[in-house]
Amino acid sequence: MGEIEEIISEILKFRNERDWEQYHTGKDLAICLSIESSELLESFLWKSDTEVDNEKLKDELADVLYSAFLLAAKYDLNIRKIILDKLEQNKGKYPISKSMGSNKKYDEL
Amino acid sequence: MGEIEEIISEILKFRNERDWEQYHTGKDLAICLSIESSELLESFLWKSDTEVDNEKLKDELADVLYSAFLLAAKYDLNIRKIILDKLEQNKGKYPISKSMGSNKKYDEL
Amino acid sequence: MGEIEEIISEILKFRNERDWEQYHTGKDLAICLSIESSELLESFLWKSDTEVDNEKLKDELADVLYSAFLLAAKYDLNIRKIILDKLEQNKGKYPISKSMGSNKKYDEL
Amino acid sequence: MGEIEEIISEILKFRNERDWEQYHTGKDLAICLSIESSELLESFLWKSDTEVDNEKLKDELADVLYSAFLLAAKYDLNIRKIILDKLEQNKGKYPISKSMGSNKKYDEL
Repeated sequence: MGEIEEIISEILKFRNERDWEQYHTGKDLAICLSIESSELLESFLWKSDTEVDNEKLKDELADVLYSAFLLAAKYDLNIRKIILDKLEQNKGKYPISKSMGSNKKYDEL
Repeated sequence: MGEIEEIISEILKFRNERDWEQYHTGKDLAICLSIESSELLESFLWKSDTEVDNEKLKDELADVLYSAFLLAAKYDLNIRKIILDKLEQNKGKYPISKSMGSNKKYDEL
Repeated sequence: MGEIEEIISEILKFRNERDWEQYHTGKDLAICLSIESSELLESFLWKSDTEVDNEKLKDELADVLYSAFLLAAKYDLNIRKIILDKLEQNKGKYPISKSMGSNKKYDEL
Repeated sequence: MGEIEEIISEILKFRNERDWEQYHTGKDLAICLSIESSELLESFLWKSDTEVDNEKLKDELADVLYSAFLLAAKYDLNIRKIILDKLEQNKGKYPISKSMGSNKKYDEL
């Protein structure tokens, strides 16, 4: 079993032992992911990077990843594949020659 | 090299070829993750789950994971370890006996 | 003094008495607004509308409005005017004949 | 009619002419508000405050306020009252003596 498959298997075991799948509509999982990302962002609010609490950050990133992996499992998406495919796609949207050192979005390049 | 380490290595290569690390403060990566999660959530807006466009969903989840993996790399966090640690921690917060079949938060159980 | 002007004046008084303007960059106010909106959304997570706690909702909406009004004040935007202008603009994007009873975005109509 | 009541009345007229109330569950309005706040936040991504496009910002803030006012209307909440009540409440959570010049959350003061 691959590393990611193993993590997802542990996540689904945790969910199933609590009979929570009934609440895990796609919409609610997406809401959950958005809320967890926002809690992570709160670590940085009113602060510079050096003031951030690394323990809180780790904690929140774990929640984000947990929600994202649950969504991947629900929609049967291969995490490794969709990230690597996206990188390929972004190589086209952000060619090195145009995007080097730039903070512009692809449609402004 | 593990599966996740390989993905991160590809992501960092993509970033470095464009000299983007200068923009990737922790705060901006957290903003980015929050925005991508919100775009994923938009797939579900005003809709029931059956009306969702799976291609759009896949695309947005890839963006979310890309941002989350970049954050993990920046803060040197081991993705597998922080998810599994969080599951252990949540087993304490959500004991099966109390949380079985319930949609309540741990502080309301 | 108009109703909205009065509210903003109270908000700025509260802020100034605490000398918080130094932290209120545009970016941090926008982060704050996004976090507050996400906390409001959490009232609905895993739930149907009938299960929502109205007191919590009221509380979170007040935080959202507080942040949004602070942003309007910072950028000297007239709240009444920008909402009414946006409605005019949306009448063009969503003509009644095309959008009546539809949950589609303007670019899908 | 008060200023805010007038704005809400225009918003509801716009909604009703399109027969959109059927889609405006509390949950979807809260999702909408969260997405609009996130789009506003995107104006600041990878940028310093001075690089922000003020026209885009105005546009996004109008969308945020539109969604927030729709929520207030749906739950019959008085915008002026809930903001002023929240300010009163926050005076207790953030007494001037403790919070002056501080970027800390009330539970860290």
